[in-house]
Amino acid sequence: MELWFTEKQTDNLKFSIKIKKHLYSETSKFQKIDFFDSYEVGRFFTLDGIIMLTEIDEFIYHEMITHVALAVNPKVKKVLVIGGGDGGTVRELTKYPNIEQIDLVEIDEMVVRTCMKFLPQTANKLSDKRVKIYYEDGVKFVEKVNNFYDLIIVDSTDPIGPGEGLFTLAFYQNCFQALNEEGILINQHESPYFSTQREEVKRVHKKIKSCFPISKVYQAHIPTYESGHWLFGFAAKKLDPIKDFKGHNFDIETNYYNFALHKGCFALPTYINKMLEEI
Amino acid sequence: MELWFTEKQTDNLKFSIKIKKHLYSETSKFQKIDFFDSYEVGRFFTLDGIIMLTEIDEFIYHEMITHVALAVNPKVKKVLVIGGGDGGTVRELTKYPNIEQIDLVEIDEMVVRTCMKFLPQTANKLSDKRVKIYYEDGVKFVEKVNNFYDLIIVDSTDPIGPGEGLFTLAFYQNCFQALNEEGILINQHESPYFSTQREEVKRVHKKIKSCFPISKVYQAHIPTYESGHWLFGFAAKKLDPIKDFKGHNFDIETNYYNFALHKGCFALPTYINKMLEEI
Repeated sequence: MELWFTEKQTDNLKFSIKIKKHLYSETSKFQKIDFFDSYEVGRFFTLDGIIMLTEIDEFIYHEMITHVALAVNPKVKKVLVIGGGDGGTVRELTKYPNIEQIDLVEIDEMVVRTCMKFLPQTANKLSDKRVKIYYEDGVKFVEKVNNFYDLIIVDSTDPIGPGEGLFTLAFYQNCFQALNEEGILINQHESPYFSTQREEVKRVHKKIKSCFPISKVYQAHIPTYESGHWLFGFAAKKLDPIKDFKGHNFDIETNYYNFALHKGCFALPTYINKMLEEI
Repeated sequence: MELWFTEKQTDNLKFSIKIKKHLYSETSKFQKIDFFDSYEVGRFFTLDGIIMLTEIDEFIYHEMITHVALAVNPKVKKVLVIGGGDGGTVRELTKYPNIEQIDLVEIDEMVVRTCMKFLPQTANKLSDKRVKIYYEDGVKFVEKVNNFYDLIIVDSTDPIGPGEGLFTLAFYQNCFQALNEEGILINQHESPYFSTQREEVKRVHKKIKSCFPISKVYQAHIPTYESGHWLFGFAAKKLDPIKDFKGHNFDIETNYYNFALHKGCFALPTYINKMLEEI
């Protein structure tokens, strides 16, 4: 018997992974959660059938959503992570000795509980003393905060289902307000390639740009995500990701991110530059 | 009825494209050639079932295999393209007014004939006056050449089947000999991500490095290729792709490549740097 998991990346493209075992399946209040073990990409989990992460390339996504901001402002002490219940972003943040407070706001407690069980590689730093987990709606959480965080990371699903509110103008305005003077907002910015997602990239970028004086986009190669080409947004009140790049001497092990790549990842293909200029 | 084309990217991963029409199928002396029209990626063609190019992202591969070298040495006049019977690399080269001679050596005449028929977007510059097509084995072709070309582009298939000889040490030694003092060798360097191809990257890089004083690797996001993360090799007798980057004022339209990205694409992820250092 062969068991294959298939994700429809668009109506007309499919990506399939040969499965060793379907480890777990549960429908939470918010979404269907499934864990699999595979021959090629290790363990992986899906929300409503969409791949969230795989063991072999989650390091790329989590390093890139975290370390870019920290190299621009290595003095970051207070961080808010919205979404990211798998713990991968938190794991990267805990590598920084000077970070004092990591607030993780995940709407779905079941994601955290199941990732702790099935994906220890990713979730194993959720027990760090500096981490506090709030099982709340991130949209409402930021409404209450003023001039507090050095860094907000929006580690969301796609803009459908429970993640939808994390792609609205009001949310980005509240993030602006929740950040202090040197504050940085990082968000996963979708894939630029296939037409459906491309429209999402434009929409999200337009909204963030209207809220933040500095709004740039950087990229990474993430093989198991649709098209393998993923974008991240870097928005800030005053820090520019290239001009204000500082680097640091922390002894932080990474497998994708490095300081040379920091500058390289902001050098976007012409078709993406054009797309962003259209906004 | 639904018709799907499926490529096994590894034994345990599949990528599938919904097909409008299977346009053509033929087995040449060397390989099976198929052309398809699809809903998402336009027309595409396969050799022995492996995707060679799709209309929606072939510009990325062809721009990146061509324009990097031309920005390091804009005075290139004589170019040899080995493989590349689809004409995409030739199309990019013909954008440079100062290029005088483009020799295309493609082992399989049927690839050229069918691409001219089914992929005019890619093949439409094969009729340029500067282009001469040789239906020969590229390995043997370079053996006879001494100190002649400014640029050799190895636009090959994977290192199995007819393309195998283009990944040997003897071939790279002959390329070195066929290039003049300022000569540059560009080759498609496979994908770094999945374990089978990763070994190929190491093997090919080791061989080129042993032949050329300068041997660097750069990357591009090519969605329809395995993992979406593709590498190219830049090897030269004396020109360094970053230190000797010159740029130019030619009015050349590109949709992926630009001068900022030129530097960015050599900034590789840490795991690739480690892999290349191991050699």
